[in-house]
Amino acid sequence: MAPASKTWVYLFEDGNAKMRDLLGGKGAGLSEMKNAGLPVPPGFTITTEACNAYYDAGKAFPPGMWDQALTALKKVEQETGKTFGNPANPLLVSVRSGAKFSMPGMMDTVLNLGLNSQTLKGLIDLTGNERFAYDTYRRFIQMFGKIVLDIEPAKFEDIFEEGKREYGARVDTDLNAAQLQEIAGQFRRAIKGETGRDFPEDPLEQLKLAIEAVFASWNSPRAIAYRNFNKIAHDLGTAVNICTMVFGNMGSDSGTGVAFTRDPSTGERRLYGEFLMNAQGEDVVAGIRTPAKIAELQQEMPPVYQQFADIAARLEKHYRDAQDLEFTIERGKLYMLQTRSAKRTAAAAVKMAVDMVGEGLITKAEALQRVEPNQIYQLLLPRFDQAAKDEAIGKGRLLAKGLNASPGAATGKIAFDADRVVELAKQGLPMIMVRPETAPDDVHGMLEAKGILTARGGATSHAAVVARGLGKPCVAGCESIKVDPEARQFTVGGKAFHEMDEISVDGSTGEVFAGVIRTIDTAFAEDSELAVLLKWANEVKRLGVWANADYPRDAAKAAQFGAEGIGLCRTEHMFFEEERLPIVRKMILSAAEATALEKELDAARAAVEAAEPDKKAEAEAKLGQAKAKVGGSAAVKAYREALAELLKFQTDDFKGIFKAMGGRPVVVRLLDPPLHEFLPSYEDLLVEVTELRVKGNNSGELREREELLRAVAGMREMNPMLGLRGCRLGLMFPAINKMQVRAILGAACDLQRAGQKVHPEIMIPLVGYVNELKIIREQLEKVAKTVEQEKGQAIPYKFGTMIEIPRAALTADEIAQSAEFFSFGTNDLTQTTFGYSRDDAEGKFLLQYVERKILPTNPFQVLDRSGVGKLVQIAAELGRATRPDIKLGICGEHGGEPSSIEFCHQVGLSYVSCSPFRVPIARLAAAQAALAGVERDK
Amino acid sequence: MAPASKTWVYLFEDGNAKMRDLLGGKGAGLSEMKNAGLPVPPGFTITTEACNAYYDAGKAFPPGMWDQALTALKKVEQETGKTFGNPANPLLVSVRSGAKFSMPGMMDTVLNLGLNSQTLKGLIDLTGNERFAYDTYRRFIQMFGKIVLDIEPAKFEDIFEEGKREYGARVDTDLNAAQLQEIAGQFRRAIKGETGRDFPEDPLEQLKLAIEAVFASWNSPRAIAYRNFNKIAHDLGTAVNICTMVFGNMGSDSGTGVAFTRDPSTGERRLYGEFLMNAQGEDVVAGIRTPAKIAELQQEMPPVYQQFADIAARLEKHYRDAQDLEFTIERGKLYMLQTRSAKRTAAAAVKMAVDMVGEGLITKAEALQRVEPNQIYQLLLPRFDQAAKDEAIGKGRLLAKGLNASPGAATGKIAFDADRVVELAKQGLPMIMVRPETAPDDVHGMLEAKGILTARGGATSHAAVVARGLGKPCVAGCESIKVDPEARQFTVGGKAFHEMDEISVDGSTGEVFAGVIRTIDTAFAEDSELAVLLKWANEVKRLGVWANADYPRDAAKAAQFGAEGIGLCRTEHMFFEEERLPIVRKMILSAAEATALEKELDAARAAVEAAEPDKKAEAEAKLGQAKAKVGGSAAVKAYREALAELLKFQTDDFKGIFKAMGGRPVVVRLLDPPLHEFLPSYEDLLVEVTELRVKGNNSGELREREELLRAVAGMREMNPMLGLRGCRLGLMFPAINKMQVRAILGAACDLQRAGQKVHPEIMIPLVGYVNELKIIREQLEKVAKTVEQEKGQAIPYKFGTMIEIPRAALTADEIAQSAEFFSFGTNDLTQTTFGYSRDDAEGKFLLQYVERKILPTNPFQVLDRSGVGKLVQIAAELGRATRPDIKLGICGEHGGEPSSIEFCHQVGLSYVSCSPFRVPIARLAAAQAALAGVERDK
Repeated sequence: MAPASKTWVYLFEDGNAKMRDLLGGKGAGLSEMKNAGLPVPPGFTITTEACNAYYDAGKAFPPGMWDQALTALKKVEQETGKTFGNPANPLLVSVRSGAKFSMPGMMDTVLNLGLNSQTLKGLIDLTGNERFAYDTYRRFIQMFGKIVLDIEPAKFEDIFEEGKREYGARVDTDLNAAQLQEIAGQFRRAIKGETGRDFPEDPLEQLKLAIEAVFASWNSPRAIAYRNFNKIAHDLGTAVNICTMVFGNMGSDSGTGVAFTRDPSTGERRLYGEFLMNAQGEDVVAGIRTPAKIAELQQEMPPVYQQFADIAARLEKHYRDAQDLEFTIERGKLYMLQTRSAKRTAAAAVKMAVDMVGEGLITKAEALQRVEPNQIYQLLLPRFDQAAKDEAIGKGRLLAKGLNASPGAATGKIAFDADRVVELAKQGLPMIMVRPETAPDDVHGMLEAKGILTARGGATSHAAVVARGLGKPCVAGCESIKVDPEARQFTVGGKAFHEMDEISVDGSTGEVFAGVIRTIDTAFAEDSELAVLLKWANEVKRLGVWANADYPRDAAKAAQFGAEGIGLCRTEHMFFEEERLPIVRKMILSAAEATALEKELDAARAAVEAAEPDKKAEAEAKLGQAKAKVGGSAAVKAYREALAELLKFQTDDFKGIFKAMGGRPVVVRLLDPPLHEFLPSYEDLLVEVTELRVKGNNSGELREREELLRAVAGMREMNPMLGLRGCRLGLMFPAINKMQVRAILGAACDLQRAGQKVHPEIMIPLVGYVNELKIIREQLEKVAKTVEQEKGQAIPYKFGTMIEIPRAALTADEIAQSAEFFSFGTNDLTQTTFGYSRDDAEGKFLLQYVERKILPTNPFQVLDRSGVGKLVQIAAELGRATRPDIKLGICGEHGGEPSSIEFCHQVGLSYVSCSPFRVPIARLAAAQAALAGVERDK
Repeated sequence: MAPASKTWVYLFEDGNAKMRDLLGGKGAGLSEMKNAGLPVPPGFTITTEACNAYYDAGKAFPPGMWDQALTALKKVEQETGKTFGNPANPLLVSVRSGAKFSMPGMMDTVLNLGLNSQTLKGLIDLTGNERFAYDTYRRFIQMFGKIVLDIEPAKFEDIFEEGKREYGARVDTDLNAAQLQEIAGQFRRAIKGETGRDFPEDPLEQLKLAIEAVFASWNSPRAIAYRNFNKIAHDLGTAVNICTMVFGNMGSDSGTGVAFTRDPSTGERRLYGEFLMNAQGEDVVAGIRTPAKIAELQQEMPPVYQQFADIAARLEKHYRDAQDLEFTIERGKLYMLQTRSAKRTAAAAVKMAVDMVGEGLITKAEALQRVEPNQIYQLLLPRFDQAAKDEAIGKGRLLAKGLNASPGAATGKIAFDADRVVELAKQGLPMIMVRPETAPDDVHGMLEAKGILTARGGATSHAAVVARGLGKPCVAGCESIKVDPEARQFTVGGKAFHEMDEISVDGSTGEVFAGVIRTIDTAFAEDSELAVLLKWANEVKRLGVWANADYPRDAAKAAQFGAEGIGLCRTEHMFFEEERLPIVRKMILSAAEATALEKELDAARAAVEAAEPDKKAEAEAKLGQAKAKVGGSAAVKAYREALAELLKFQTDDFKGIFKAMGGRPVVVRLLDPPLHEFLPSYEDLLVEVTELRVKGNNSGELREREELLRAVAGMREMNPMLGLRGCRLGLMFPAINKMQVRAILGAACDLQRAGQKVHPEIMIPLVGYVNELKIIREQLEKVAKTVEQEKGQAIPYKFGTMIEIPRAALTADEIAQSAEFFSFGTNDLTQTTFGYSRDDAEGKFLLQYVERKILPTNPFQVLDRSGVGKLVQIAAELGRATRPDIKLGICGEHGGEPSSIEFCHQVGLSYVSCSPFRVPIARLAAAQAALAGVERDK
C-alpha cells in the first residue's frame, strides 16, 4: 500500500526532463520547457506511480493524491489569477494523458475542462466573445462526452453536421454563437439520452472523472494491444497532465499548430509542420479545414513565427535532438504545449545524426546511438529501379496490385507449394511462392522463398503476418489472380503463369509484375551519410563483423558492405547446383558400399601389420582378397569418380570466394546436411513406383525406380535434423570431407602461389563430443599437409568447429583442445536448446506462441539470452579457459540482429557473421553495444 | 623421462595387497601371502610403471630397471641358495605377466626359465631325476618358443604328438627321459628353423627376452581388443613377476592345482577346484589329462590337503572374500603361487555376500558392495519355465535352434519389418521381430521388440551386436527357418508362420518355439538371499527407487520389486489400445477445427467483456455468430464426443494404477507424442490413394482416402521429435489435457471416497519456457478444483514438469516457480543435448561411434555425465534455489543403470524411476552410491 505522504502531483516548475518515468514524456517536456523560461501555461502532472497505485487499490485514487491535486490547482489559480469553477473569472484546463512512451492507442486530451452553465457565462463576460465561448463549450461537451463518458463520436458528429447543414454553414467557423449554443444543448441532451444522467456541472467532478478516464485508458484493449505489439511493459502506468487552457480559437489572432525542428522524412534542417488559425488542437488533425504550412506563419504573424523559430532552435539545442512541438497562439501570444523527440524515417535518422555531429550539436558516439540499427535495413535492401518499373508498366507487365503486406522487392521463379519451393530453392534458384492463401504447413516454403504472393487474405492474414515476421516481401490478397496449385499455375487477365515462370513482387507497393524487374542498391555511396556513420561505427566497435556467403557474388557484396571476413561459407548449396546434382547423387548412392569396402581394406592392412608371425600369411591373403574386392567394385569406382569430379568444381568454388575476400579470413564449413536431402523425394518415388506397379509395368524402368526407392528408403530418417549429418557424415564417409579439404587447400595454394593472400579456416560442423573433432581433424590435417607438399606452399589455415549442439557448449573446454576457433551456430543451437524443429515449429506453434506471449520473441530471430545465451556464455568461458586466444564468432541468423549482437559483445565474442545485407546493421549495432558497455562501466 | 633412481623392482616381501596398481593383481597377491608367512617361493615383481616407461622410451627398459632386477635376483639366489645359470645348482624361475585387472588376452606364463644345456645337467645331478629334468626342459623350450619367440604352438604340438605316437605313449607321463630329450632336441631345431637363430642359451638373455615379451604382450592386438571390450584403460601397463620355480612334475609326490574357497557358481561354502599330480600348471587347463576334484586331495595327501584348506580359510579371512588360488606341491611340500578374488556368478555373488555377513566375515555395507548391480538383472528376468519348455518340446513345438546371440526369454507376436513392429508395439502388443538378417534401418523396430530372431548372421552379426547392446533376447543365424518378409511369413520344417502368430525365443539357449512358453520369475522369494540383500540396501540408500509403469499389471510388478512410487506413467500407450484408437483418431482429426472455433468463441466472449460501450452491441452480435458456428460444427461435435468417451477409459486406467500403488505417489505424464503418431501412416495412404487413382476408381472410397491423406499430410512433421508434442499440444489443444486431468482427479476422488489413499502427481512434458508450464498449470488447476468440488473431495495432488529440453534445465530457476517437482526425462534430454534422434542415430552411426570409441559408451544407456549430467546438475541447483523442497527425480532409462544412479545420488536427486525389472538393480546401485559417498566423505 502506497504511503499517504508520497508525492503524487508535481507542478510543472517542480519537474524536469529526467523525470520521464514518473511524469511521462509530455509532463517531463512541459516541466523542462517551463524551467527553461519558455511560455508554458501553468499546470501540474499527476504521476505514473499514482496511476499504478490507483490500479493496485482496485481503481481508487491513492490516499493524498486528490488533495495534492487540489493544492496544485490552487497554485495554478494563484498564478493565473483565475479560479476553477468561478463564474466571475473561470479557470479552464486541459487534461492529457502522458505515458513514458508515446502511445497512440490511449486517450489523448480533454480540452476546456471546467466549463458549465455558470462558468460559460463568466467566459462570455470575460472575453466579450460569445461565439468563442459557445464554440469552446460545445467542444468541451463533445470531447468529454466522447473521451470520458465513452459515447460514440458519431453521435456528436451527426448532430454537428446536421446543424451545419441546417444553418447553411460550410465549415465550423461559419457557425455563430446562437447556432453553437443550440448545438451544445443538443450535445447535452444526447449525453443524457445515452448515459441517463445529466452532463456533470461540477468542475471538480469533471476533473475527477477525466483523471479516472486517463487512468482507465491505460488498460483499454487498444492500449494493451498497442503495448503488446510494441513490446512496452504493462506496468509503467500513465501520468495525467492538467494544464491551464490557452485558446487558439479566440479569433483570427489565435491559432494552433505542430512542427518538427527538422524534416522527419529527409532529415533536412528546416522547420517542418503546419498550423491552423482560430482553431483548437484537434482541428489540425481532424481534417475539417486544411492546415497551412508552418512557413506561412512567417507571413501571417512574423514576430510570433520568429519567437517560435527561436524557441524551436533553443529546444533542439537544449535536447540536442530534433523535436516535435505543439503550440497555441492566443490573441497573438505564443504558448508551448509539448516538446518531444521527433519520430523520423531511417534516412532522416541517419542524416540528422551525421549533420548534428557536423554542427557540433552531438558527438559521434551520440550520433551512433541515434539510429536504430534495424531501421537501416530498408535503406540497403535492393529496391526495384523506378525506371525499370515504369518501363515494365509501359509494356503492360504490371499484372495486378494486391495488398502491400510485407515490404521489400523480390524477383524469382514461381512455385505453388512449399515443398517445391524448398526443393528448388535448395538448388540455388530464387523462388517466389504463390498460394491461394497460406497455412501453417506452408511456412517451411516461405522460409526459403524470396517473396510471397497470395490471392486471398488481408494485412493480418497468415501470409502477411508470417512474411513480416520472416522479413520477406509479400503481396497478399491479390484477388485478381486465380491460383490453381493442382495445375501448378495462376492466371491473371487471361494470361497463365506456370511453375518456374519469373515474376517480380513489390511488397512495399503491392505490385506484381511479369518477368524480372531490375533492382538497385541505393544509399551506400562512399560519401553517403550512412557510409560516414558506419565509418564512425568501425572506430568504436570491438566486435568484428563478418558475413555469411556461399558464392563469390555474395562475398563481394559483403566486402562492399564492410565485412571483415566470411564467417560461414556453406558448401551444401554448391552441391545442389544443377550440373553437379547428378554427380552428387552418384557419390551418395555409392558411398555406403564403397566406404565399407575401403574400411575392410584398411582393416586388412592393419591386420597384416598387427598379425603375430604365425598369422601373417593368413592376414596377407585376406588383404589380397580385400584389394581384389575394392578393385572390382562398381560402387568404389563410382564413388571415386564422383569425388574426383566434385573436387574440380569445389576447387573453383573456393578460389572464387577466396579471391573475393582478398586475404580476409574465410570460414568454410564442411558438408553438413543429411545426404538424403540431395536425393529425389521418397514420396515422389513411392508414387511413381506404385503407379508403375499398378499399371503392370514390368520393364527395367520399374526395377530401376524400385532400386532407387530402396536406396532412398534406406537413408530416410525420422528426424533428419538430429540424424546422420555434420561431422557424423565425416566420420561415416571420410572421403567427402577429404575431398573438400583437398579443394580448399588446393585453391588456397594456387592463389597464394599467384601472389594472393588467403586465410582459409576449416569448420567441422555439429560436433558434440571432442573425439569427433579430434579424429576428423587428424584425418584432414594429413590431407592438408599432403596438398601443401604437393603444391609446395604453406597455407595459414585453421581448424575449428561450430558450437551448435548443447553438449558442445557444455564441454567446450574439451572441444577447445582440438579447435582453434568456435563459431556459434545459433540456428541449430536454438533448435536443440529449445527442442524445436524450426521447419515444424514456426508453422505449427511458434508464431502462435509469440502472438500469445508464451515466448517474448521468436528465438530464431532474437537470441534467447537466458537459455541459448547461457550456453553461449558457458562455451565462451570454457573455451577460453582451455585456449585463451581462441577465436569466437557467431554465424547463426542472430549475427545480424541488434539485440543479439549486443549480447555477443557482452560475452566477449570476437565477431558476428550475418547475411551481407545485414553487415551494416551489425556494424552499427556492434558500435552501440560497445558504447553501452562504456557507459555501463562508467 | 623417468628418473634412474626410481624403484622399478620389488621383492615379494617388499610389497603388499594395496600395491595392485604398481605390482599388478598377481604381484600384490604374492607379496601379501609372503608377508602373511604363507609358503610362497622367493621372487620379485617388475612394476607396471616400468612397463609404461618402457613404452615411453620407445621400447627400452627404463634406466636402472635391469640393474634392479639383477639385484633382486641376487637376493632370490641368496634365499634359495641356488644361482641363476649355475650348472652346479641352477635357479629356475617362472616369468608371469600380471596387470591390475586380470586379462586373459595377454601373455600369461613362461615356466622353468633359466634352463640350458648346462643347467639342465645341473638339474639332473641335483634331483637325480633325469626324466623330470628333460620333461622340464622340453616344457621350457615349448613355452618360451610359443610365448616369447612367437612361434605357432601347433609346431610343437605336432612334434610332441608325433613323438608320443612313435614311442607308443598314451599320455605325456608315459614318455621317458630319453624320449623327452629327443623331443626337446626337435623343439630346438624347429625354433632354429622358424627364427633362423639358436635357442638362447644365456639365462639372463632368456630373462630379458621374457620380460620384453611380457611388456609387448600388453599391446598385443588381442590385449588391446580385450581392454576395449572390457573398458580397461590402456595406460595401466602390466607388471612382470619373476618367481623361483617349484616343480609339480617331480613325480607322484608332486602336483599342481587351482581352487576356489567357495563354489563360484552357487556360492556354497566349500573348497571347489581341481588338481593334477606330477604336472605343471599348464597341464591342468590343457586337458591332456583329466584333473581330479580338489576333495580327492584329502585322500591322496591328507596333511597337504589340510595345510591347503587352512591356508585357503586363512586367505579368505584375510581378504574377507572368496579367493581363487593356485598351488604347487613339490615332493610333498605345498607352495602358494597365486591368490585373487574369485570370479562368480550373480547367484553366487549374492549368496556369498549374504552368507559372509552371517559368518561375521564382512559388514552389510561390504556385502552390498560385493554384488555388481547389473549382474542381478539376470536373476530377475523372466525365464522360460523348464517344465513348460520340456512339455513344448514333447509336443513338437521346438521349431529350430539358432545361435544364442543375446540372453533372455521373449514371447510375442511376430512381424517382419521394423515399421510394423513399431506400429503394433505401440498398440501395446509384445512383438518378436523376425528378419532374414538385420541392418541399421531395422534398429527402431528392434528397440520396440521384445525379442529378435534372424535366419542369417553369427555372434557378431548386426542383429547380435545390436540386441546385446539393447539388452534384448536374440536368436541369430537360425538357418533352418526361411524368412520371406514380402509375404510376411517364415517357414520351418514345412510349417508356415504369419504376422501376428505367436512364438517364443530363448536367447540364452538359441531355441525357438511355436506359441507361448510360460515364463517364471525366480529368485525373489521373501526369504531369498537377494531379498535380504535388498532389504539391507534399503537401510543404506538415500535415493528413492520408483518405477515407470503404464498399466496396473506393471505397477503391481514394480510394487512387488520394492518400487516406492510410479515415477512415470505414460498415457500414450493407453491411447493406442485397439478399441480406443478409432476414438483417438476421431478426436485428432477434429481437433484443429474444433479448437479454432472454440477459440473464436472465447475471443468473442472476451471481446464482449472488453468492448467499449459503443461497441458492445456489435461484439454481442459477433458472440452470437460464434456460438452458432460452434453449435453447428460437426468437428466440435466429434471432438467433444471423442473426448467424453476417452474420459471414461482414462478414468478407469488411472483407478487401476492408483489402486496397484496403494497410496504411493503416481506421476502421470499428460499426453506427449505428436498426434500424427496415432494416425495411419502417410506412406501407406499415399500408396493406397495412388493405387485407387491409377485404377481409375472414382468412388467415395477414393475421396474418403484422399481426405484422410490430406489430413495426415497436414499434420506430418519434418522432425516430429522436435515438433508439436508435449506441452505444446496442451497449449494448442487444451481440451485433451483437461480431459486427462479430469480423469486423474475423478479417479482419485472416487478411490479416496472409498477409503483408498491416492497421491497423483500431474506431469507436464517438454516444457522449455516457464510460461508454457504456467499457462497450462493455471488451466488445469481450474479443472482439478472443479472436479474436487463436484466430487466433494480434496486430493493431495501436485503439478510438476519433465526436464527434458536443455532450455528447461538452463532456466530451471524460473520453471521451479511453477513446478512442485522435476522429473528428468534423460532419454529426450540426451537426444537434445547430443542432437541425436535415437531412432536414427542408433542405426546410422551411434553403435559404430561406441565401437570405434568415439563415444566411451552409448549415452542412451549410461548417462553422459559431462554433458547431460551437467545439465541435470545445473537444473537441480537452480530448481532448489527457487524452491528448496522441490522433489527431483529421473525417469529416463538411465534410472535403472548403476553408474547413472550413482550420478543421481551424487547430485542429490530425490529418486530414480526405472522399468519394474530394474527396480532391484536400482535399489542395490542406490545403496552402493550412498556407501561410496560415505567413504568419500571420510
